[in-house]
Amino acid sequence: MPRYRITVEYDGSNYAGWQRQRAAPSIQQALETAIAAYSGEKITVHGAGRTDAGVHARGQVAHFDLQREWDLKTVRDATNAHLAMARERIAVLDARFAAADFHARFSARRRHYLYRFIIRRPPLILDRQRAWRVNVPLDAAAMHAAAQVLVGRHDFTTFRSVHCQAKSPVKTLDRLDVRINAADGAVELHATAPSFLHNQIRSFAGTLKHVGEGKWSREDVAAALKACDRTACGTVAPPEGLYFMSVDY
Amino acid sequence: MPRYRITVEYDGSNYAGWQRQRAAPSIQQALETAIAAYSGEKITVHGAGRTDAGVHARGQVAHFDLQREWDLKTVRDATNAHLAMARERIAVLDARFAAADFHARFSARRRHYLYRFIIRRPPLILDRQRAWRVNVPLDAAAMHAAAQVLVGRHDFTTFRSVHCQAKSPVKTLDRLDVRINAADGAVELHATAPSFLHNQIRSFAGTLKHVGEGKWSREDVAAALKACDRTACGTVAPPEGLYFMSVDY
Repeated sequence: MPRYRITVEYDGSNYAGWQRQRAAPSIQQALETAIAAYSGEKITVHGAGRTDAGVHARGQVAHFDLQREWDLKTVRDATNAHLAMARERIAVLDARFAAADFHARFSARRRHYLYRFIIRRPPLILDRQRAWRVNVPLDAAAMHAAAQVLVGRHDFTTFRSVHCQAKSPVKTLDRLDVRINAADGAVELHATAPSFLHNQIRSFAGTLKHVGEGKWSREDVAAALKACDRTACGTVAPPEGLYFMSVDY
Repeated sequence: MPRYRITVEYDGSNYAGWQRQRAAPSIQQALETAIAAYSGEKITVHGAGRTDAGVHARGQVAHFDLQREWDLKTVRDATNAHLAMARERIAVLDARFAAADFHARFSARRRHYLYRFIIRRPPLILDRQRAWRVNVPLDAAAMHAAAQVLVGRHDFTTFRSVHCQAKSPVKTLDRLDVRINAADGAVELHATAPSFLHNQIRSFAGTLKHVGEGKWSREDVAAALKACDRTACGTVAPPEGLYFMSVDY
């Protein structure tokens, strides 16, 4: 039975998140429905990351098995055709075969996320639901310097949702860079780790915004990390700024 | 009576274009309605460029007169508040006072437009209605070389809509550059001129796509220009790839 690996883009705005839910639209369900529509097979699609409601993806990875060996272009194009017919805001960018022991979630070595801040007072129009609009200047260099406090292996209890189901709050963060996008002036937070805790990047983004505003210092971030206490976290940033960019296997 | 100059961003997707129309939503009408809602004054908003249905703006400029001298932040924020309440996809980015003889359209010295092509087969999701999806590779260097044929003072009859109302088809094109955006790989066409004919940039974009695909040569573009014949033009590119970026005064 062939295993398929797909790369998926989606606009998370109108979904309850990646994971299938009983009474709310999910990316997982929409993909399963589209694949069943052309293959006639009822399957489960396993994703690399369970993104929250409103969070986008440019490179979510998922796998599934089908009895039949399909042409890979058909898998991509037929899934996209059925997604489009159902007016889903999801597209399969790439489809390939995977080894029988490949697992989109458990085989992932590293995950890459992007968080976008746009600094302005007027509402976002062309970037509506695509970034966090922040109505104060942000010092990106100060944010970057403070972010380095978080890089490495730490107990990230402070930056973890109380609903997080991970066994341990100890994780290794490989990269947390803050940069200004030269093309559009957006402040971008790039995060890479083998895996993340629930709400971890949005907790980083909200906390680093305090630094960008000058309300928190680098030392305040270090103290918050050391506290291992959820209440020591800054604001949790809204989901619309977050993008699941890619996965390394 | 003070004259106000505003810079406006909009998502052109659900509008019939800039210009007020009897039975279809327009940017101009939406702005006039929003300004009337807080000022109580029925006014006309004059734009620098009459963009078509589906065409976006990041920096359209417009002017209008009000009896009362308002605080400029109020002009910006109150207009935006009323636009948001009406669920318009329009925002005022900046408001300032202008001289009594300033005219958004007639005082403009130079207009800057961007046309975006995204090369891929899957439908656009996060860039839906924000670019022309092109399902073939494009040679951006060949497109740029051919574009240089069009720069300068020419009779642009070939690249002008039959509905164009300009008195003369002779215009000066200052700049027509094709570049690959390093951040996202999109092919971008940057066009600058004192003024443009109706559909001129979309006619350039469609013609240069033929060059990018290898169907047309630089010489074919030169011959099309020289023909001064609308039927010699390549395809007219769709509006969703076009952005009115800024105006020089």
